Amino acid sequence: MAAGTLLYAQSGGVTAVINATASAVIQAGRRHGLRVLAGRNGILGVLREQLIDTTPLPASTVKALAHTPGGAFGSCRYKLKSLDADRAKYERLIEVFKAHDVRYFLYNGGNDSADTSLKVSQIAAEFGYPLTCVGVPKTVDNDLAVTDTCPGFGSAAKYTAVSVREAALDVAAMADTSTKVFVYEAMGRHAGWLAAAGGLAGRTDDEAPHLILFPERAYDEAAFLAKVREVVERVGYCVVVASEGIRTADGTFVADAGAGKDAFGHTQLGGVASLLAARVKDALGYKVHWTLPDYLQRSARHLASETDLKQAIAVGTAAVDYAVKGRNAVMPVIKRIKDRPYRWTIEPAHLSDIANHERTMPDDFIREDGYGITDAARRYLEPLIRGEAPPPYGRDGVPKYARIDASYVDKRLASYAP
Amino acid sequence: MAAGTLLYAQSGGVTAVINATASAVIQAGRRHGLRVLAGRNGILGVLREQLIDTTPLPASTVKALAHTPGGAFGSCRYKLKSLDADRAKYERLIEVFKAHDVRYFLYNGGNDSADTSLKVSQIAAEFGYPLTCVGVPKTVDNDLAVTDTCPGFGSAAKYTAVSVREAALDVAAMADTSTKVFVYEAMGRHAGWLAAAGGLAGRTDDEAPHLILFPERAYDEAAFLAKVREVVERVGYCVVVASEGIRTADGTFVADAGAGKDAFGHTQLGGVASLLAARVKDALGYKVHWTLPDYLQRSARHLASETDLKQAIAVGTAAVDYAVKGRNAVMPVIKRIKDRPYRWTIEPAHLSDIANHERTMPDDFIREDGYGITDAARRYLEPLIRGEAPPPYGRDGVPKYARIDASYVDKRLASYAP
Repeated sequence: MAAGTLLYAQSGGVTAVINATASAVIQAGRRHGLRVLAGRNGILGVLREQLIDTTPLPASTVKALAHTPGGAFGSCRYKLKSLDADRAKYERLIEVFKAHDVRYFLYNGGNDSADTSLKVSQIAAEFGYPLTCVGVPKTVDNDLAVTDTCPGFGSAAKYTAVSVREAALDVAAMADTSTKVFVYEAMGRHAGWLAAAGGLAGRTDDEAPHLILFPERAYDEAAFLAKVREVVERVGYCVVVASEGIRTADGTFVADAGAGKDAFGHTQLGGVASLLAARVKDALGYKVHWTLPDYLQRSARHLASETDLKQAIAVGTAAVDYAVKGRNAVMPVIKRIKDRPYRWTIEPAHLSDIANHERTMPDDFIREDGYGITDAARRYLEPLIRGEAPPPYGRDGVPKYARIDASYVDKRLASYAP
Repeated sequence: MAAGTLLYAQSGGVTAVINATASAVIQAGRRHGLRVLAGRNGILGVLREQLIDTTPLPASTVKALAHTPGGAFGSCRYKLKSLDADRAKYERLIEVFKAHDVRYFLYNGGNDSADTSLKVSQIAAEFGYPLTCVGVPKTVDNDLAVTDTCPGFGSAAKYTAVSVREAALDVAAMADTSTKVFVYEAMGRHAGWLAAAGGLAGRTDDEAPHLILFPERAYDEAAFLAKVREVVERVGYCVVVASEGIRTADGTFVADAGAGKDAFGHTQLGGVASLLAARVKDALGYKVHWTLPDYLQRSARHLASETDLKQAIAVGTAAVDYAVKGRNAVMPVIKRIKDRPYRWTIEPAHLSDIANHERTMPDDFIREDGYGITDAARRYLEPLIRGEAPPPYGRDGVPKYARIDASYVDKRLASYAP
């Protein structure tokens, strides 16, 4: 007989290693004798009573989840508002928990999901329903408070550093007669964490990336163009890493400058890299190329960081441990003990210290001139991209990623459209 | 005493494995007792008498070249015209060869370089200068005649298949509340080889990529949008791989539709993926995302195909072998003996059968509806992306790529500006 039912759900943008957390949750749940359910498409699946029973999943599939990117049970962009504004939804959650005897709720996401987990714990207490809520950290944005880093970030950071180094070798070889300026667009609407990780591609001023543009610094076109020219004249080419979130001094997103409708009423999609490349071409006349890796950077499980993978697994295991111990409204967070060699441990933090807080990039991570990272940033970032954890590949040359044949538990409630 | 001097040069767009060919050339040259020089930035370095002496390079560096992307000696986009039109340049090449006692010339590139190698062999014969010219194949475009495939293509193809599969898992997880249509832009201005490789990411109609757009088929916006809608309604999301070279029925490049100057006179850089994504958004209202991997796809040594790597090494070794045997005006090409299991060998082909010929994608590689690949395409492509050959990584989490500290041979001729 199961010692209880645990419900796990994924939330927000997925990562290369969120399924490693899921894998750890299911494995730990099985060790504790729990039945583990998973919400289809996150909290939406809970509201809709679309609950996947992980019990029939073979151990090999659960293991393979750990090397599979994306969100195996589906995730969602769906924010529950305050307890007052969305009361009916919170009550519905409690109904679903009751109907399926869910005693543990693990919500795997970023800021919003920490907030949701906290509120669910509060309403359960209000209703006198015995539920232990645990938030599980995940986000490539690396913006969760308290924790040293967020599972998912390290792998995206490794992807960024490796991709920038590789592309830079290409540009270096061709610059004499071809592309002289290359722009790499990194994710990060609010903070420059991934752009900073691009800085790990090189060590000296002459090594790529030569310039990094952070959302934490106002974008000044004239100053940027002058820097590009200076680098091209000194090095022969210039590799730029630009955060998608850079803004001019008046707060306007640079990415939006090229967006809107054209003369035919057609949508023009924005983008920082294409815009910067165009400006360089116009102002300096250099041949330009640019890349927008987009989802590739957060789904590149083939290039996952071993550190990141280990942490993704550790938070999953710890979350189940906290749950069965009745540690309510907490999140397992990563605590850095030492930089070199990197030592870390997992400890619980209260969700109220995490929900609706945001971790910004320390000011001393950005070089004084605003276009590069400091040694402090390197000390922080380097361990997070350390180590490789490649997935197994098939004879067909592509990784053998797990496939979940979802088996749903029978619905017990009236249907509900959130 | 050296048995002679061999001059090697890289030409055109670089790849993830062209340095593996260079590594093989240097190692084979050393085994044959040759002195191996390398042109700085391809044929331009020969014209300018910028010749790197590879003799001082430690064996470990030469070995490390085999896992280093980009072009270690520099490459160039520089096409020599006909013997008549560019006679002075061809004569200069012969002068440089004479001055440095170069008896073997290996030119590593695509169509243009095969043509150049052929012409150099002709002018050497005309001057009675004893020179053996060997072309060495390389191009991610996979458009060289005679050879089964071109070194560099297999790794770019593997990058494409893996990236599409990974991004598709991301999209699948989020489609319920977020991005429903994702467009991946593959290189290939003239042929859809890399776009076709994206097809290896999935096997069934419902697996991504759901639609592939080939330059070999006219782009019909209405038909494409209808397909996208059909896939989204059936699968829940749609992943599109689009070749940068797709054109409408009148021959206009789709990528150029969004390019030009905006109302402020600012350059708008084109791009197929962003344009298709915008059309989907306008016409169907779906949330869209897109990626332009650009140079990342041809420099991703971290994800090289083992088959490709082996072939890149084999053509380098064979080229030196042909050279010392005096097989003039040939290129080592890959001959496929069998599909399953894949068996191949290297054999010489005359440069006149390769120069200025172009290998196009067989018509039966494209599915009848024009939006996918056939089993024939899979049989051809799959072995080319098979096997992994990861580079060694450092403690800093990024691959340890070789660095060449170029040591030039002393100039013996008057300076020359090509």
